[in-house]
Amino acid sequence: MYDLIIIGMGISGISAAIYAKRSNLNVLLLESNAPGGTLNKIPNITNYPGFNNITGPDLAMNLFNTINELEIPYKIEEVTDVILEDTKTIKTKNNVYHSKYLLIATGRKPNLLGLKHEEDYLGKGISTCALCDGALYKNKEVAVIGGGESALSESLYLSKICKKVYLIHRRSEFRGEDLTLTKVKEQPNIELILNEEVTELIIKDNKFKGIKLKNKELNISCLFLYIGSTPNTEFLKQTDIKLDNNYILVNDKYETNIKGVYAVGDVIKKDIYQLINAASEGAIATINISKN
Amino acid sequence: MYDLIIIGMGISGISAAIYAKRSNLNVLLLESNAPGGTLNKIPNITNYPGFNNITGPDLAMNLFNTINELEIPYKIEEVTDVILEDTKTIKTKNNVYHSKYLLIATGRKPNLLGLKHEEDYLGKGISTCALCDGALYKNKEVAVIGGGESALSESLYLSKICKKVYLIHRRSEFRGEDLTLTKVKEQPNIELILNEEVTELIIKDNKFKGIKLKNKELNISCLFLYIGSTPNTEFLKQTDIKLDNNYILVNDKYETNIKGVYAVGDVIKKDIYQLINAASEGAIATINISKN
Repeated sequence: MYDLIIIGMGISGISAAIYAKRSNLNVLLLESNAPGGTLNKIPNITNYPGFNNITGPDLAMNLFNTINELEIPYKIEEVTDVILEDTKTIKTKNNVYHSKYLLIATGRKPNLLGLKHEEDYLGKGISTCALCDGALYKNKEVAVIGGGESALSESLYLSKICKKVYLIHRRSEFRGEDLTLTKVKEQPNIELILNEEVTELIIKDNKFKGIKLKNKELNISCLFLYIGSTPNTEFLKQTDIKLDNNYILVNDKYETNIKGVYAVGDVIKKDIYQLINAASEGAIATINISKN
Repeated sequence: MYDLIIIGMGISGISAAIYAKRSNLNVLLLESNAPGGTLNKIPNITNYPGFNNITGPDLAMNLFNTINELEIPYKIEEVTDVILEDTKTIKTKNNVYHSKYLLIATGRKPNLLGLKHEEDYLGKGISTCALCDGALYKNKEVAVIGGGESALSESLYLSKICKKVYLIHRRSEFRGEDLTLTKVKEQPNIELILNEEVTELIIKDNKFKGIKLKNKELNISCLFLYIGSTPNTEFLKQTDIKLDNNYILVNDKYETNIKGVYAVGDVIKKDIYQLINAASEGAIATINISKN
């Protein structure tokens, strides 16, 4: 019986574990894949205060070293099911664990278009994070794909950095907020391309050069995908945890609607999905748990 | 005319500046003292995810290097007055600056008892942060001074790490929440010492050994002071910014009651005052400013 089980060893889960250990909680970390989570997919991190420039895998290794330094137990096992009664029961393929508190930090996967070469050029011309990568394309031409609030607000964000932003949407109407859409339409260097779809990536000499649409080609330095993400919450389907579009809903203490169950990081519904915020949330959640 | 002026080069102000630069805002940092703020007073940081153990001055230097790397302008000048109209006017002794947005990140000073040797032993037996330093005193005896919610909740926190916690208060009644007080009274390793005051620190061979009270002596490894802090908001006295006990009140976007004026870090009213949270708040504030 653990005080706290944390599912997910991305930056939010590891941050939570560090604070749990500092609060003398008997904690176990569970991770289905490699420690570090999506950090392992980020080539360069220049927006985590304290580091000028660190690779995602190096930051993941630093975090993992802290886990080992603090002798925090972890298991590389995929969670298949949870039962959320007074005691929380966490099932993996081969084991069953019990805890008083559960913290879900399983992150999310950005959706891709499903085009040829798309995965190969992630971080090298294809991006799913304007805040992470926008600064790399200062005064360059870029495109954003999507029709929701994220596509709109990230286009606005990029329009202040990049020379030109093509905002491509497969329909004629946006789902985002009116105010954001008004701002997008007023921004002179955003060009809307509606009723269009990307049909092919243009790759030359192993470099991303642009995109083909149904009716034209665009030479761009980066294609930003805002066609949604999929939070990793499939294993919660049998529970009563409140989700919004598969994201977990939490209060300002990062507690879900189920007593003793908390969630932090990219798996929760929120406005800003940055590493530094995820690390902060992990700390806040466990400090709150330790004060219960 | 700047887009954004940030007052304070502690971790929250520097984090905000990094994100401001990434959003292509024309930003200026102002600091009255050394870059790094209170970081410069922390011997060892073991609770900032990404570093196993780094000295406060080293983390301050890393942050300062990022400011230089990104060519973010800063001035070492004390702000003496601000005028918060549509345009924000920031006065220092020798200069006057103007900006569209203002972010206040001036931090706070923990109150001390005013005893002989007290300042010399900060970080070496005298602490103002149980979350920062508690883990150093695992299974040791410590004392907490104070009568408010912080003294109560930090005593609870320490009671799970330390062998024994003396909670010393100069009155017979606590100002903290009933629930917290009940928990404190139920915790077997917390001993309340009421109507008492620390009269002297016991130092032997240049080491902190304990404290003298009016009626007894206590041998302890650390004395934790929770007798309040003083946020650095004196320069706001002439403004209409809403304060609570001198702390700045902000909403969940870190905006104050005055349009275009934001605040982050230890100078705001909140529950948890940790480095990682301050860094996160700086990022959130400037991302929100850049989306205006």
